[in-house]
Amino acid sequence: MVPRYSRPEMTAIWSAENRYRIWFAIEVFAAEAMGQVGMIAAEDAATIRKAYDSDVLGEIDVPAIDAIEAVTKHDVIAFLTWAGEKLGPERRWLHQGMTSSDVLDTALAVQLKQAADLLIADLDKLLEALKTRAFEHKLTPTIGRSHGIHAEPTTFGLKLAQAYAEFDRSRARLVAARDDVATCAISGAVGTFANVRPEIEAHVAKELGLTPEPISTQVIPRDRHAMFFATLGVIASSIERLATEIRHLQRTEVLEAEEYFSPGQKGSSAMPHKRNPVLTENLTGLARVVRSAVVPAMENVALWHERDISHSSVERFIGPDATITLDFALARLTGVVDKLLVYPERMEKNLNRMGGLIHSQRVLLALTQAGMSREDSYSLVQRNAMKVWESDGQLSLLQLLKDDPDVTAKLTSEQLEGLFNLDYHLKEVDTIFSRVFGGASD
Amino acid sequence: MVPRYSRPEMTAIWSAENRYRIWFAIEVFAAEAMGQVGMIAAEDAATIRKAYDSDVLGEIDVPAIDAIEAVTKHDVIAFLTWAGEKLGPERRWLHQGMTSSDVLDTALAVQLKQAADLLIADLDKLLEALKTRAFEHKLTPTIGRSHGIHAEPTTFGLKLAQAYAEFDRSRARLVAARDDVATCAISGAVGTFANVRPEIEAHVAKELGLTPEPISTQVIPRDRHAMFFATLGVIASSIERLATEIRHLQRTEVLEAEEYFSPGQKGSSAMPHKRNPVLTENLTGLARVVRSAVVPAMENVALWHERDISHSSVERFIGPDATITLDFALARLTGVVDKLLVYPERMEKNLNRMGGLIHSQRVLLALTQAGMSREDSYSLVQRNAMKVWESDGQLSLLQLLKDDPDVTAKLTSEQLEGLFNLDYHLKEVDTIFSRVFGGASD
Amino acid sequence: MVPRYSRPEMTAIWSAENRYRIWFAIEVFAAEAMGQVGMIAAEDAATIRKAYDSDVLGEIDVPAIDAIEAVTKHDVIAFLTWAGEKLGPERRWLHQGMTSSDVLDTALAVQLKQAADLLIADLDKLLEALKTRAFEHKLTPTIGRSHGIHAEPTTFGLKLAQAYAEFDRSRARLVAARDDVATCAISGAVGTFANVRPEIEAHVAKELGLTPEPISTQVIPRDRHAMFFATLGVIASSIERLATEIRHLQRTEVLEAEEYFSPGQKGSSAMPHKRNPVLTENLTGLARVVRSAVVPAMENVALWHERDISHSSVERFIGPDATITLDFALARLTGVVDKLLVYPERMEKNLNRMGGLIHSQRVLLALTQAGMSREDSYSLVQRNAMKVWESDGQLSLLQLLKDDPDVTAKLTSEQLEGLFNLDYHLKEVDTIFSRVFGGASD
Amino acid sequence: MVPRYSRPEMTAIWSAENRYRIWFAIEVFAAEAMGQVGMIAAEDAATIRKAYDSDVLGEIDVPAIDAIEAVTKHDVIAFLTWAGEKLGPERRWLHQGMTSSDVLDTALAVQLKQAADLLIADLDKLLEALKTRAFEHKLTPTIGRSHGIHAEPTTFGLKLAQAYAEFDRSRARLVAARDDVATCAISGAVGTFANVRPEIEAHVAKELGLTPEPISTQVIPRDRHAMFFATLGVIASSIERLATEIRHLQRTEVLEAEEYFSPGQKGSSAMPHKRNPVLTENLTGLARVVRSAVVPAMENVALWHERDISHSSVERFIGPDATITLDFALARLTGVVDKLLVYPERMEKNLNRMGGLIHSQRVLLALTQAGMSREDSYSLVQRNAMKVWESDGQLSLLQLLKDDPDVTAKLTSEQLEGLFNLDYHLKEVDTIFSRVFGGASD
Repeated sequence: MVPRYSRPEMTAIWSAENRYRIWFAIEVFAAEAMGQVGMIAAEDAATIRKAYDSDVLGEIDVPAIDAIEAVTKHDVIAFLTWAGEKLGPERRWLHQGMTSSDVLDTALAVQLKQAADLLIADLDKLLEALKTRAFEHKLTPTIGRSHGIHAEPTTFGLKLAQAYAEFDRSRARLVAARDDVATCAISGAVGTFANVRPEIEAHVAKELGLTPEPISTQVIPRDRHAMFFATLGVIASSIERLATEIRHLQRTEVLEAEEYFSPGQKGSSAMPHKRNPVLTENLTGLARVVRSAVVPAMENVALWHERDISHSSVERFIGPDATITLDFALARLTGVVDKLLVYPERMEKNLNRMGGLIHSQRVLLALTQAGMSREDSYSLVQRNAMKVWESDGQLSLLQLLKDDPDVTAKLTSEQLEGLFNLDYHLKEVDTIFSRVFGGASD
Repeated sequence: MVPRYSRPEMTAIWSAENRYRIWFAIEVFAAEAMGQVGMIAAEDAATIRKAYDSDVLGEIDVPAIDAIEAVTKHDVIAFLTWAGEKLGPERRWLHQGMTSSDVLDTALAVQLKQAADLLIADLDKLLEALKTRAFEHKLTPTIGRSHGIHAEPTTFGLKLAQAYAEFDRSRARLVAARDDVATCAISGAVGTFANVRPEIEAHVAKELGLTPEPISTQVIPRDRHAMFFATLGVIASSIERLATEIRHLQRTEVLEAEEYFSPGQKGSSAMPHKRNPVLTENLTGLARVVRSAVVPAMENVALWHERDISHSSVERFIGPDATITLDFALARLTGVVDKLLVYPERMEKNLNRMGGLIHSQRVLLALTQAGMSREDSYSLVQRNAMKVWESDGQLSLLQLLKDDPDVTAKLTSEQLEGLFNLDYHLKEVDTIFSRVFGGASD
Repeated sequence: MVPRYSRPEMTAIWSAENRYRIWFAIEVFAAEAMGQVGMIAAEDAATIRKAYDSDVLGEIDVPAIDAIEAVTKHDVIAFLTWAGEKLGPERRWLHQGMTSSDVLDTALAVQLKQAADLLIADLDKLLEALKTRAFEHKLTPTIGRSHGIHAEPTTFGLKLAQAYAEFDRSRARLVAARDDVATCAISGAVGTFANVRPEIEAHVAKELGLTPEPISTQVIPRDRHAMFFATLGVIASSIERLATEIRHLQRTEVLEAEEYFSPGQKGSSAMPHKRNPVLTENLTGLARVVRSAVVPAMENVALWHERDISHSSVERFIGPDATITLDFALARLTGVVDKLLVYPERMEKNLNRMGGLIHSQRVLLALTQAGMSREDSYSLVQRNAMKVWESDGQLSLLQLLKDDPDVTAKLTSEQLEGLFNLDYHLKEVDTIFSRVFGGASD
Repeated sequence: MVPRYSRPEMTAIWSAENRYRIWFAIEVFAAEAMGQVGMIAAEDAATIRKAYDSDVLGEIDVPAIDAIEAVTKHDVIAFLTWAGEKLGPERRWLHQGMTSSDVLDTALAVQLKQAADLLIADLDKLLEALKTRAFEHKLTPTIGRSHGIHAEPTTFGLKLAQAYAEFDRSRARLVAARDDVATCAISGAVGTFANVRPEIEAHVAKELGLTPEPISTQVIPRDRHAMFFATLGVIASSIERLATEIRHLQRTEVLEAEEYFSPGQKGSSAMPHKRNPVLTENLTGLARVVRSAVVPAMENVALWHERDISHSSVERFIGPDATITLDFALARLTGVVDKLLVYPERMEKNLNRMGGLIHSQRVLLALTQAGMSREDSYSLVQRNAMKVWESDGQLSLLQLLKDDPDVTAKLTSEQLEGLFNLDYHLKEVDTIFSRVFGGASD
């Protein structure tokens, strides 16, 4: 975790405090269930639950627990020792018949669920920002580019609607990934429930909002976590896509949009004229970071036999790093979208800078429909288009076509003019918007 | 694609023949729809459709198409030229108002859907094999191991049930990934439907069993493909897990199970005594191969503006490689599971080789329940357990405990004997099986 | 391997023919050495060597060997059976005391060495092309960009010189990686030379131009291969860098350079005006492919004990794929550089399009040197620069500064004009070129 | 960075304090050189250098600098503001004509060099430990295993010698990677030295022990860093290999070696008998973590034009994470090797548990040398070997062979006994040791 790329709420999920609170909740709910099924004294179980409900732990004294761990060399035992002091003799029932992994893996599930909830909320904010700006620029014409080369007109709203649809898909994937990872395992040393009955697991799962893991082997199987981190990797890749789009739009020669630049801000210590897309460049890098969790998460799946502990060190890194970084990145991207400076005049200027070349396909189609073969139509358009291209947009394709007798043999001037029409390209924008955002296409 | 790791049905999906047939179907269905909406002459559209229904293409002459492509340098145009010759003058309506990507991306969606269907069928066969063997060995006791060290008893059926549950999850993920990737885009040069109406896309999608892509930008967005290949990567990781388990079980010193070894087979050219787990080792390597598609698929997401073509070369590799290899790997794993030689006597021997140490936790719990503190109980058990450990299982933990006055002060010989009971560990197997496979836990 | 991204010479290295020839060479050289040390009859060894020197195998009948393998299920034995038929009774000495891995791993080393030699030759051609074009444009001014935003002037030659230096470093790394991987192991089943003396290995290594592996364990350790493929991954990343640069330069709005476009070429089937940087986009994708070999190659290192065979399937993919693709990519990039269309006038136009903003730093420094504080100088320049920025380069920074009394209080008009001088930025180009290409800086 | 997987010396390299000290050194050495070439007043330069030599900064007040950065939003400017207050008016010459990247990239080079130095020292300690233990067990016989199956005898010293050779190679690679990354760039906004002469760079490089970057583009090219992190990834993979070996050896059924287990240690909270290889399992996970830096480092290479800043966030993670984790892992592995409990008696027991099967190849060769065809020899040995195999080593291969008339027709009992000789497999150990560790093979 790098502090400058973190936000407090997500960071708190990965704090020692939160982890300990979850551990305690698991132990308490387990004890409560054990009381219910008669594994331990019912009154003691009730006492433990009551203590929990009145927040018996109070503030967590992490250094004190660390000090105990320095002796016991076991984190769960250290915590239980510290927490036990807050209880009376009923403390002896804590962790009865359980294995450390019962606590550790279930706690990780809670943390990942909490993290997923935050990320889903982040996505919702991003989606809202994208939707607002998409509708704002629904009909703002701009050049569509394939291969970085001007192709045909589109609208800036469509660009944002595309991003909306992409992040909306990722939201659904993240909900699925959250469900996948939100399971509870209290099944003992090799998952046989030998010393802890399945009812315990069921109760803890219910209290924590988790699903019981159908079959565990001391640990919750790591294909669940692999799927979770892979999903984060896909979301990060979509962040990279939108960030790259904005970086392109802010290029000096393009400048159709810009990250917000506050009046007193310095773009460069050396060059006072610079206004750099540093936020989206940063997001491009953060996407690489989030993605780097995917392969180790997959390598974690093949644990030996009923478990080995090689996954643990990996998760201490990627658990916080991937979620904290993605949370930060989504929030940063939302801010960028919210405040993005959009320059419709520049879009129009760029649209027109190629001397009308962007209408070449439509002329091609019209010639074909006028009875010319596709091959001949193509050559005819291309020979005029290339002149415009080489003039760097100084020549007008429409004029050249009007002057080309092979063209005018098929199409009149009026017909040609009709083909150079921006609205023609925008006529289905409503349809697309209603496909993306729902609602009637009016 | 490496021929020795491929099977014909999946390979056929990625053949030039199949690709061309899908291209033709797309063009035909598009023409049909254009006829319906009046973009082209209705009779011509009908003629085209009729020709398609009577398999006008016959055998695909790939070299002939290649020869045309060598001239045109454009694969779609080359194919259309060849295919057009099979039609009458109505051929001129093919590809009307469409962009190559309309064909290419939709065709890729069909191929990925076909591939996913095969992989789901593969998973079904693997699940069937796992289920059969799991029930066969539902109550075959075997040692559960954590950290590669004997822990407590479990059953061989539970090991297989765990794998069943894991692949069953992956089946659900693959169904979702298939749906994610099975979309159809016929939306023109920058996705605005300027020259091709949305109805065309809707018709083609319906005919091909795809969903219309809500918003495309010449291309179908690559987050879909990234999710697809990530899912394959997770499945591959689960294959690695089960393969690793079997490799461990076949180790000379363990030998609780073995890949099937036919009577005349040679394990090693130099060492006539060898029987090696080469299939599962091979699967371990193939898992790495499938997984290697995940990162490039994610790097493919951030295409520039409305599209660049950098994804294309990547997909020419990972499309066939990941699906063909995974198909082969799933089938190979199914064969391994089906024919796996299982040695219950050896499992029993291994279970007993540690002089009863596997029951140490239960003694610990009994001492605690008899009123001893957890700390004292632990030391008491550990001091006896370590002697057994150092004797390499020659000493008996039960006997040592019976001889330890600190123990016998709390537990009688009869009580101690009752703790060394295998059935205690198997009592919830039914419950777990019904959680995994459904049905009442009888 | 994808045929369209392959070249014959590199593909031939990975052909069955080449592999079999190398296998035969290893067996023959081993037999020769065994004759020398008296392990086998000296005359028989000489006969074998003589047969080899007269190319006794002739054309390799791959289907015949495949047919034998279908029976023996062992590739080395199948080949030896086929090859043995070309020899007399001395054939019995082939493979004496050797293990299949002795042949397979040493053969892979030869193939990787051959591949590395080709790649080094590819790099030499690329370096030559870069050097030629760099000197051609040594003093062609162009705008340097940071963050995609105009920064200060540089030259197009410097851009190419930078790429030259980068690929020159990669050449040195590849030479090191080749040496790393070019080792020979003929050490028997677990590397102890129990049945084959070290002299055999030494002789085979010498004949094949390899180094004896100091310590092998049936196999050559895979850290060597991991380093090799990691090096290819770095080279691929540098290809991506230069390809990305060219893609940027070819953008419609920038258009300072372009991939060569032959007179009759079609850029787009739908849009006759398009000239797309498809080669460099393709290279961007191929870079991802080559890079995807790195992680599996690293995962191959941790083989179990003296060896397991999980690496083998991985290498059947990445061995050919990474080298064939990189060879193709380097050659394609060389062609792009060789024939790159460079537009110095457009570079000049772009340089000037920002109204002189690119000189802002120099004004800042001059104001500082004239005694103004850095903070004040910065504000002064920035307030004028922002006006130019907002005018989209229609205003002139020089003129605004001349009109700003706070500026003219420190710098005269003549002094200001002197600061807007392109040559100032080019004065160290010679120095840099001599650092990169060697030779005196004249 | 995860504190529990970090050591103070490496962590200190990545502290704010160290970074600021390096920044200051760069600025001071640059000013000194500017004084020498007359860019700034010589006395002022001397004053700055003198202040540096007397440690004018004293303790670095990181919070104070952070407070300034919160205002300026620029880290280098914030630091210079704070540092400037420690100087007199000569402070104005700091950073003259330089760009932030001149400081940042050169400082990163210093940090990576410092990190590499530590890692090389770590490797030296690991090599020393491996060498000591290798010589200790040079002739300790143990079974060599391929595919996890007993193959032929080797020695435990050879296993360690193999690891020694592997890490020795990685040491050489790391020295090369350190040299690759240890360059200094003080070349201005786009690397043209427009406002800062090459002599400045040369002087700073010399003072810091770096090489001047031949050609930079505001930034030092990232292929250097990619190579550095790739090298760390290879080293991590070798750690995984040795860790995996030890994990295998500690398995309950194998138990030929064990991680040191202190008298009072608890292996498991639930199972008092457990002694788990948790350190090497942890190392397996840490290897995945280090390796995860490789792909993002490669993705960092293709910066746009003269630079974009996407690499920066990535490096804030992987710079500390990969080096701190690898440092910790190397030290942990050294400790494991140093204190590894080795059980020669168990190795001997395992060697013998297969009833002499490990000598099967030698019998095969002897039969061949006695004139039998290889095929017949193989069947003969295999038919006896399989009986031993199926008896789980209860039968003796030697005895079965002595009882097989087809065998005794070729080999006498005495000859057969001579083939079951362990020393035969150890006769080249000296040779191999001298190849790995140098020195005469006596």
